[in-house]
Amino acid sequence: MRIIVDAFGGDNAPLAVIKGVVAAKKEYKEDIVLVGSEEKIKACALENGIDISGIEIVNADEVIEMCDDPTDVLKKKAGSSMSVGLRMLSEGNGDAFVSAGSTAALVVGATLIVKRLKGVKRPALATVLPGDNKNTMIMDIGANAVCRASMLLQFAAMGSVYMKKIYGVENPSVGLVNIGAEETKGTPLQLEAYKLLSESGLNFRGNVEPRDIPSTFCDVVVADGFTGNVILKLTEGVAKMFSGRIKAVFKKNIFSGLAYLLVKGGIADFKKKMDYSEHGGAPLLGVQKPVIKAHGSSDERAFKNAVRQAIGCVKSDMIGKIKEEVASLSHLTEGKEE
Amino acid sequence: MRIIVDAFGGDNAPLAVIKGVVAAKKEYKEDIVLVGSEEKIKACALENGIDISGIEIVNADEVIEMCDDPTDVLKKKAGSSMSVGLRMLSEGNGDAFVSAGSTAALVVGATLIVKRLKGVKRPALATVLPGDNKNTMIMDIGANAVCRASMLLQFAAMGSVYMKKIYGVENPSVGLVNIGAEETKGTPLQLEAYKLLSESGLNFRGNVEPRDIPSTFCDVVVADGFTGNVILKLTEGVAKMFSGRIKAVFKKNIFSGLAYLLVKGGIADFKKKMDYSEHGGAPLLGVQKPVIKAHGSSDERAFKNAVRQAIGCVKSDMIGKIKEEVASLSHLTEGKEE
Repeated sequence: MRIIVDAFGGDNAPLAVIKGVVAAKKEYKEDIVLVGSEEKIKACALENGIDISGIEIVNADEVIEMCDDPTDVLKKKAGSSMSVGLRMLSEGNGDAFVSAGSTAALVVGATLIVKRLKGVKRPALATVLPGDNKNTMIMDIGANAVCRASMLLQFAAMGSVYMKKIYGVENPSVGLVNIGAEETKGTPLQLEAYKLLSESGLNFRGNVEPRDIPSTFCDVVVADGFTGNVILKLTEGVAKMFSGRIKAVFKKNIFSGLAYLLVKGGIADFKKKMDYSEHGGAPLLGVQKPVIKAHGSSDERAFKNAVRQAIGCVKSDMIGKIKEEVASLSHLTEGKEE
Repeated sequence: MRIIVDAFGGDNAPLAVIKGVVAAKKEYKEDIVLVGSEEKIKACALENGIDISGIEIVNADEVIEMCDDPTDVLKKKAGSSMSVGLRMLSEGNGDAFVSAGSTAALVVGATLIVKRLKGVKRPALATVLPGDNKNTMIMDIGANAVCRASMLLQFAAMGSVYMKKIYGVENPSVGLVNIGAEETKGTPLQLEAYKLLSESGLNFRGNVEPRDIPSTFCDVVVADGFTGNVILKLTEGVAKMFSGRIKAVFKKNIFSGLAYLLVKGGIADFKKKMDYSEHGGAPLLGVQKPVIKAHGSSDERAFKNAVRQAIGCVKSDMIGKIKEEVASLSHLTEGKEE
C-alpha cells in the first residue's frame, strides 16, 4: 500500500505534514510518498532535525494557493503538489491521497483527474462530527452547493458504507436534515429525498431537525452542500463563542482562577471529545480512489490521523463497497437528470 | 394603544400568558386584551390568585393545536383564540398581536387575515440572536423554506427598519449568509441576492460565513427560511450540548462542585447574555400590523417582553417605515416573478 500526501497543503505545511507523515510511517508501517518541492521538504526536515529517510519524495515545484482558481489544478498549475499527487493516484502510483490544500481545487481535481465512480452523480465531502453520545457523519459539507434528491440518496449510501467500513457501525442509521420532523416539511428537495430514502432499503430514520444534530442517534446525516457547510461551520462558530465565554468566566478573578484549577481535568476531557481532528480529515466520497481533505489548520497529529484514515479506506476496500451500493440503488437514481 | 394577546398559545398557556400580561400592564400601562376562553382564563387567574381586573378578555373557545393544519386558522378553527385575535387586529380592534401558538398557523393566518403590506412578496419571521459582541437579527427563520433573491432583499430592508426602530441602531449593517466570503460563492440564490443587495442602498457588507454568525458585526443577516431555521435551531442545539457538558464537568466530584460555587456568578451572567427570551418573540415582518410570535416555551417574563416588543413596534411606527422602505426598493423587486 502506498499513501500519497500533499506536502504543501494547509497552513502548517510543510513542517506539520512532514512530522505527521513520519509519525504515521512509524506507527502504521505503510509506504508513504510526500509530493512537493524536494528541496524545501529536505531543508525543512534538516532544519527541524527530522529523519525522513523512510519517506519517498516525488518532486513538484508548484503549490495550489487558496487564491488560485480551483480549475487551475487541471492545467495552469498541473505541476503543483496537489495535481501531481492526484495524477499519481489516478495512474495507479498510489492507493490514496491526502491533502490539506484548497477544498475547491481538491474537489475539482479529484473529480476530473481521479474521476467519479460509475453511476455516482457527484462526489461529496463528508465529515464526522463528535456528538453528545456518538459520532455522526454529515454529508455533503460543501462540494455541491446545489443538490438534487438523487444525489442526497447517493450521499446516504456512500456515508453508510464509510461509517460501516471505518467506524465498524453495523447497519448505519441515516437521517435527512430538515426543518421539521414530518415528511411534509422542507423544500421540494427534502420532500423528494425523503421519498427516495424511504424506498432505498437503507436504514433511513426520517428527518433530523437542526436542533437535534449534536445529539442525534443517526450515524449519517445528509444535506445539500450549502446546508451541510452551514451546519459544519456554524457548529464550529458556536463552539468557539462558547469556549471563549467560558474561558472569560474562569479568568474573571482569583476565585474563578482557583475554580479553573479544580475542573481543569474535566475541561481537558471535554475538549478532547470535541476535537474533530481526532477523526482525520474529510473524505471525498464518490471518486475512484480514497481522497482525504485534511483541515487547513491540521497539525502533526491531524495529518497522522488523516493518513491512518486513508489506510483504513484502502484496507477495507471502501471504494469497492461504495461502487456496489451505488449500483444497487441505480433503479432510484438512473434516468434522473444529471 | 391596544395589544392583543393569544391566551392559549404556547406550552405554558394560559398561566404564563396571564402572568406576563398582568406584569406588562403594570409596567407599560397600555391596554392589553387577552383572547381565549373567558371561563378558563378567569378560573386560572382565580386559582393562582392573580388580579386580572385591568385586563380585557375577548372570548374564543377554540385553540389551534400544534397538530392542526396551519390553514385551519382560516376556516375550520375560525373560533380559535389565534383566529379571533388576528381578525380583531385586521379589523382595527387592536394595534399588535402576540401569540406563542403554532408558528405555521400564525404565518398563514397573519398573511391571509392581517394581509401583506403592499409590495411585500412574503412576510418573514425574524429573531434576534445574542452574539459575542452585539445583537444580530436573522431573517427569515422559517416562514419561507424556498426564497427568491428579491425576497431576501426585502428581508434585509425590513430587518434594517426593525433594528433601527426597536434597537436604535443607526444605519444597520446587513450581511448575506453564504458559504464563502467571495461574491461568487453559493447557489444562484446567493449570487443574485448579493447583486440586488449591492445595488439596494442598504448598508450591505457582503457575505457572512456561518462560522462568523455568532460573532458577526452585522446587525441584520439574511437567509432563505430553510437556512435561517437551520441556523437558529442548530445554534440552540450546540449551545444546549455545550451547557450540558459544562454542567457535567462541574458535577464530577466535590472539587468541581466547589469550583462551581466560585464561578456561579459569572456563569449566571453568561446565561443571561445568552437568553434570547430577553428579546421578546420573533416579529413577523411584512404584514400590515405588528405580529409577534413568542417562543412556544415562553414563561411569564418572555410574554411580558413580547408585549413590550409589540408596544415598541406600534410606538415607533415600524410598519409605516417598512412600507416606505419596501416601496423605495420596488425598482429592484418589481416585475420579478412572485
